Amino acid sequence: MKINKFVMPEVIFGNGAIHQVGESCSRLGAKRVLIVSDKGVLHAGWLDIVLDSCQKAGLRTSVFFDLTTNPKDYEVAAGSRVYVENECDAVIGVGGGSAIDTAKAIAVLVTNGGSIHDFEGVDKIMEPLPPLVMISTTAGSGSEVSQFSVIVDSERKKKMTIVSKSLVPDIAIIDPHTLTTKSPQLTASTGLDVLTHAIEAYVSIAATPLTDVQAKNAIYLTANYLRPSVASTMNEEAKAQMAMASLQAGLAFSNAILGAVHAMSHAIGGRFPLFHGEVNAALLPYVMEFNFLAVPRKYKEIAELCGIATEGLTQVEAGEKAIEFVKKLSHDIGAPQRLSDMGWNGDMIEEMSQIALEDACMITNPRDITLQDVKNLFRRAL
Amino acid sequence: MKINKFVMPEVIFGNGAIHQVGESCSRLGAKRVLIVSDKGVLHAGWLDIVLDSCQKAGLRTSVFFDLTTNPKDYEVAAGSRVYVENECDAVIGVGGGSAIDTAKAIAVLVTNGGSIHDFEGVDKIMEPLPPLVMISTTAGSGSEVSQFSVIVDSERKKKMTIVSKSLVPDIAIIDPHTLTTKSPQLTASTGLDVLTHAIEAYVSIAATPLTDVQAKNAIYLTANYLRPSVASTMNEEAKAQMAMASLQAGLAFSNAILGAVHAMSHAIGGRFPLFHGEVNAALLPYVMEFNFLAVPRKYKEIAELCGIATEGLTQVEAGEKAIEFVKKLSHDIGAPQRLSDMGWNGDMIEEMSQIALEDACMITNPRDITLQDVKNLFRRAL
Repeated sequence: MKINKFVMPEVIFGNGAIHQVGESCSRLGAKRVLIVSDKGVLHAGWLDIVLDSCQKAGLRTSVFFDLTTNPKDYEVAAGSRVYVENECDAVIGVGGGSAIDTAKAIAVLVTNGGSIHDFEGVDKIMEPLPPLVMISTTAGSGSEVSQFSVIVDSERKKKMTIVSKSLVPDIAIIDPHTLTTKSPQLTASTGLDVLTHAIEAYVSIAATPLTDVQAKNAIYLTANYLRPSVASTMNEEAKAQMAMASLQAGLAFSNAILGAVHAMSHAIGGRFPLFHGEVNAALLPYVMEFNFLAVPRKYKEIAELCGIATEGLTQVEAGEKAIEFVKKLSHDIGAPQRLSDMGWNGDMIEEMSQIALEDACMITNPRDITLQDVKNLFRRAL
Repeated sequence: MKINKFVMPEVIFGNGAIHQVGESCSRLGAKRVLIVSDKGVLHAGWLDIVLDSCQKAGLRTSVFFDLTTNPKDYEVAAGSRVYVENECDAVIGVGGGSAIDTAKAIAVLVTNGGSIHDFEGVDKIMEPLPPLVMISTTAGSGSEVSQFSVIVDSERKKKMTIVSKSLVPDIAIIDPHTLTTKSPQLTASTGLDVLTHAIEAYVSIAATPLTDVQAKNAIYLTANYLRPSVASTMNEEAKAQMAMASLQAGLAFSNAILGAVHAMSHAIGGRFPLFHGEVNAALLPYVMEFNFLAVPRKYKEIAELCGIATEGLTQVEAGEKAIEFVKKLSHDIGAPQRLSDMGWNGDMIEEMSQIALEDACMITNPRDITLQDVKNLFRRAL
């Protein structure tokens, strides 16, 4: 029997939860907070609410939003300078995975010093971080609850994965109402990212009973609520259920880690300007087909969670239906189906496959995988 | 939509997990720990393992085990003096609910000062507690993950419930192997306590999707593994599953609170020397019958989690079968069925009912309840 470990932040979940950010920071002893965000969040109006809540709680605020999709090492360094110059004592991240991963990486630098490259890998963070309050506005990345931060090494053009319990925020705030400003396209790709997190965590070789309950509920919710969430910006029930799915998938993968989809997605996402959720969505069905051999019983359970009647079906038949379900879901919500549609034509596929093979997420993939396998999977998804 | 809050400690779960206690304390910065335990744990040999692990981690240790079932205010005060005299900087609790509740209450006093009575109620703890590492050896109380501590006011002869996020330990260690030294009687009563936690949390008016996944899995596991766990001290799978059920039920009730069973059990447990798990077990079926009116749909789900085929049954029929299942489970594992068998003959029933009505756990009971209702329920269980 292996030892199961599970760690998560305090969670505040619900419509209007974003208004609790100021009080949450105060409770952690903060006086001067750095808010890390992006211009999309600013334009959607959520940053104003955060600033207002901080002001009501008597906090002094500085804002940093010079960051890009797939955030870079130099952006983290710039953010940490803003923190130091303004003598901040806590960090708020508000946005999707890019903003939150950047916020967490900035927090690493301000107490540990050095460069963010020094912390690539597992358990390299030695000094405790300042109080961290993260607000997810995308129902996708799960970074608001996870022990991960993924930052691009701009010189090597490679995504660095930083893994440490220290990166689990103190408080995660998830307000489904913030999802109403997302476009259908972003809702689709982040929703498929949620499904990818849940499925990869569920079949991971590091899965435990504690991660399974979260992963399974996330699969069930995504199977039932992603379609209506894409269909209408105003369907509050669908938004709330997808926010819960994202949270639970985040709790699952933070503790069970991921698999080949993320390893491959990190590789090409570090080199080419692609959207993480879209890349995952394109790779997921092919990796599911590849991994089926390793975990047929779990695929049957995935089929059941998707509402497929599996009585009388073999594991193989049920598994095929599960994969079919994921393909059709992705198609129905208009997600880009091919990597070539997103702007990657297979350039440097040998190098990308090698990088994917060495990614930390590949370790927990349930099926053994070779360089040739990875190349084949990339080719199928092109 | 209400705001859902969820908080839990870092969890280390598995056979042999107890050996990680020393390293866990070190990681939190501890140098001199107070270990709060009881003589049963000492005689079973688990305390030696804890001391050994602390020594290997270079920690200085002091031990306090002058505590009783339903721990008292003066025991907490005595423990806090031992902490101060030995200049401790962290607290380990190892044992069942009594040891862990005492350990948490000691931690409150050593940083907040005053008397433990000052902290009765919700959110009365202002100063952060020292690092807390809790090791559950009973698969029952859930205190190792909860934001509760229940201490008897020896003068008023009344259980005080202290509720605060500060009481959530930093790290909870659950080692199913420690359950192999429990008697069948203790396994039965603590197992029914787990079922009570899970059912009361599931039907609580404060239940959320985050607590429901934990509560439901705990019900499923208890329905399937409590019988074999009582039947054999050496059934490792059953022990591990009951340890997981206890953990998940603890996570559920820590965040969704409880109901009438616990309110009534606290009342008579504060006045008479009764075992908490046994009292809960005797009250559960009657409170389930009473509460059914409020949550018929949830009772049907409880029936399904217990493996009852509910297709074609009405909610009422399924609910009756769920209650029948609980009664039969309790009977089969030899749990005491009546409060009078445990040494309470209904003495002071009027006063006990009034105290139960005012208990914090009564607030989240799903059905409105009167003094007469509580008296009737006590009488039925006598």
